[in-house]
Amino acid sequence: MRDARTLRGFRDILPLTAITKESMLDKIKEVFRAFGFVPIETPHLEYAEVLVGKGSEEIQKELYKFKDQGGRDVALRFDQTVPLARFVVQNKHKLSFPFKRYVIGNVFRGERSQAGRYREFTQCDFDFIGTKSIFADMEIIQLINGSLTALGIENFTISINNRKILNGLTSYLAIKDKIEDILRIIDKIEKIGEDSVRKELLEIVKLSANQIDEIIKFISIRQNDDNFFEITQNYKTYNELMKEGIEELEDIFEILKTLDINPQNYKIDFSIARGLGYYTGIVYETTLDDLPSMGSVCSGGRYDKLTQSFSKDDLAGVGASIGIDRLIAVLEKLELMKGKNTTAKVLILNIDSNYTQNIYKLAENLRKQQIQTEVYPDTLNMKKQFKYANSKGHNFVIIIGENEVKNNTIVLKNMVTGEQTKAKNLEELIKMINLYL
Amino acid sequence: MRDARTLRGFRDILPLTAITKESMLDKIKEVFRAFGFVPIETPHLEYAEVLVGKGSEEIQKELYKFKDQGGRDVALRFDQTVPLARFVVQNKHKLSFPFKRYVIGNVFRGERSQAGRYREFTQCDFDFIGTKSIFADMEIIQLINGSLTALGIENFTISINNRKILNGLTSYLAIKDKIEDILRIIDKIEKIGEDSVRKELLEIVKLSANQIDEIIKFISIRQNDDNFFEITQNYKTYNELMKEGIEELEDIFEILKTLDINPQNYKIDFSIARGLGYYTGIVYETTLDDLPSMGSVCSGGRYDKLTQSFSKDDLAGVGASIGIDRLIAVLEKLELMKGKNTTAKVLILNIDSNYTQNIYKLAENLRKQQIQTEVYPDTLNMKKQFKYANSKGHNFVIIIGENEVKNNTIVLKNMVTGEQTKAKNLEELIKMINLYL
Repeated sequence: MRDARTLRGFRDILPLTAITKESMLDKIKEVFRAFGFVPIETPHLEYAEVLVGKGSEEIQKELYKFKDQGGRDVALRFDQTVPLARFVVQNKHKLSFPFKRYVIGNVFRGERSQAGRYREFTQCDFDFIGTKSIFADMEIIQLINGSLTALGIENFTISINNRKILNGLTSYLAIKDKIEDILRIIDKIEKIGEDSVRKELLEIVKLSANQIDEIIKFISIRQNDDNFFEITQNYKTYNELMKEGIEELEDIFEILKTLDINPQNYKIDFSIARGLGYYTGIVYETTLDDLPSMGSVCSGGRYDKLTQSFSKDDLAGVGASIGIDRLIAVLEKLELMKGKNTTAKVLILNIDSNYTQNIYKLAENLRKQQIQTEVYPDTLNMKKQFKYANSKGHNFVIIIGENEVKNNTIVLKNMVTGEQTKAKNLEELIKMINLYL
Repeated sequence: MRDARTLRGFRDILPLTAITKESMLDKIKEVFRAFGFVPIETPHLEYAEVLVGKGSEEIQKELYKFKDQGGRDVALRFDQTVPLARFVVQNKHKLSFPFKRYVIGNVFRGERSQAGRYREFTQCDFDFIGTKSIFADMEIIQLINGSLTALGIENFTISINNRKILNGLTSYLAIKDKIEDILRIIDKIEKIGEDSVRKELLEIVKLSANQIDEIIKFISIRQNDDNFFEITQNYKTYNELMKEGIEELEDIFEILKTLDINPQNYKIDFSIARGLGYYTGIVYETTLDDLPSMGSVCSGGRYDKLTQSFSKDDLAGVGASIGIDRLIAVLEKLELMKGKNTTAKVLILNIDSNYTQNIYKLAENLRKQQIQTEVYPDTLNMKKQFKYANSKGHNFVIIIGENEVKNNTIVLKNMVTGEQTKAKNLEELIKMINLYL
């Protein structure tokens, strides 16, 4: 006998969550399509070398890597961005640019499993490849906003920054060579607080007190009022990069404010750095206001050297990724998840084997009216059937037995009150269902 | 520089196909939900032992199997049925039975790659677990029929048989010990013809001429007219198993014929055996009438010992699987695939950077009216933008430039005829789009 168990860090998704996840993904996809983003698929398994190249030590360690039957070094994808880079280079002549794609699929990371972190999880990525237009960056914000809004989430904040600005600042302070460490540390300010950031900048990066003050002062500027871009005017004089970075944000906000997006849902935040080395421009992070400690549910940014590992022709890109599993975890914590264990609206009970034909015919007729209908397949005792109805979350069940066929009626029974209503025909039944359900 | 290539037997799916695939899956899922089937997810990666146990040699050879970072023997799933068995045993107490699930996901088989066969492909499985009711078997036929119909496919045949019947026949002929070989051979009759089947039954299975005649005569009975069940009456006397098998088909057809399913789309075919050892009752195969040589696009059957490798409590099941990738390949061959390279209905050109705001505002307004709209993100020369529009398959583009803003109009240009129509306002534009597109 084999042991029925999943691997550590892996899990099954049960109907209640899977139904919600599917309906969420449907809504998100509708938003992607509304902007003309197109789906693509890439394999789960790739040459290991394609996925990591030289790769960071961390990624190498987390990679599910092995030799296949043909002795090739292969690996399961750990994100959707590297496969995208490979895809656009390999299929360049079959695509039209700018190329906007979305992809919803699972990625694998053999990291230490911990509460809420899984070794296989779903990412929804959307990227705009082959344009340096700042309006592509703006559209990504529209997509993030549109997706969360389509999911019925209202209280969220898209935090926006520009790598050029932090690059410009470190150039100005003559500490550009230390930028990787600095970004990594200031990225943690929400988590560890200002004092710890100061301490790490001093002890680890060996910055001067002045340099630290400048950085802290800068990343503390908040976009709380309309004069934000007045405050930042001065900084444009620091250098060209800083000027460009701020002006790009100005251009984006110029358009954004004319659109029907709640201004509470997006703000500039100079402390957002995004650890990943490959971002070169705008970066995004999105937190739910009621539970910011859960971290970002949608992050991304501009990477102008996406394809440089695969091709001499660089393709610029900008995109973001919705961590749907984390988003579901946050909604569960906030008790915003409501759901049923069934995709059907009603259940038809099966109480008399003489009327099987009537039952299946009725089910077919209801489905034709867009009423999802399940039929209990066995003529078992009613108790078992009622138990099934309850466990599935059905509030109403339909009953047809000898009496009903004789009297030419259909009974709709309220599972909560026990009340039974009689319908004289299909039309009346449909009216009742649409009224009650 | 890394080589941008996929592994042999793996492939990218480009937008044209991916858009169609997604829309097909959406339609299929709607059918599943209409019958109250619920989605679940299981991991792509499992303990190798869970997936194959003792397993057949063929499966062992095709399995993507390796040791993970923790030294566990793990493997990529090669189908969705074994993970389902593991799932229902492991989560038994959280599920309500009968349990109807669907799952759409990729499976991996390291078989020899050949034209049209891939090592990673998508399966849409739907199964009805925990009931022996023959009406569950009937509902699977409804789902197969409903799915293909929802995809706009009309000319298909669901071939139905019952393992009990072939088991009954071999018992009657006292050759039950040779049934595996016999099933394997008669399953090929469509492909290799009657003569070759006779030859193999004689030479490989060593049946007598009489036994071979009986088998061939039996599997040649065709359900061409209403007296099919009269013809098969006699066979019921062979033994209990044969009687049961035929009566189950009678029960299913009794209901089926009252439903709104084209009788051309399903028939009993005693030659359908389905190779797999685990089927115990009804089996299905589905071919497209215009290209039957491509093989079955949806197969399945009843397996009454689904969970026996994981649990002493057997759970009965019946289900089928749509090979969506093969179905797409067949539709491509039949030139029934039509599609665009974009999910958007219209493209707004970007001809003057002074009017970026107008363009994005218009796009937002169109999307609010359910008109998927893409915006060209750069103010480039028109030729490049027209080229983009054509490659994406846009028949109409929208133009707003200085003239249009001045005259308060919006231009809708027909990409085929070159004709330009002016709309006075958003309402008029929407009317035109809904009229033309």
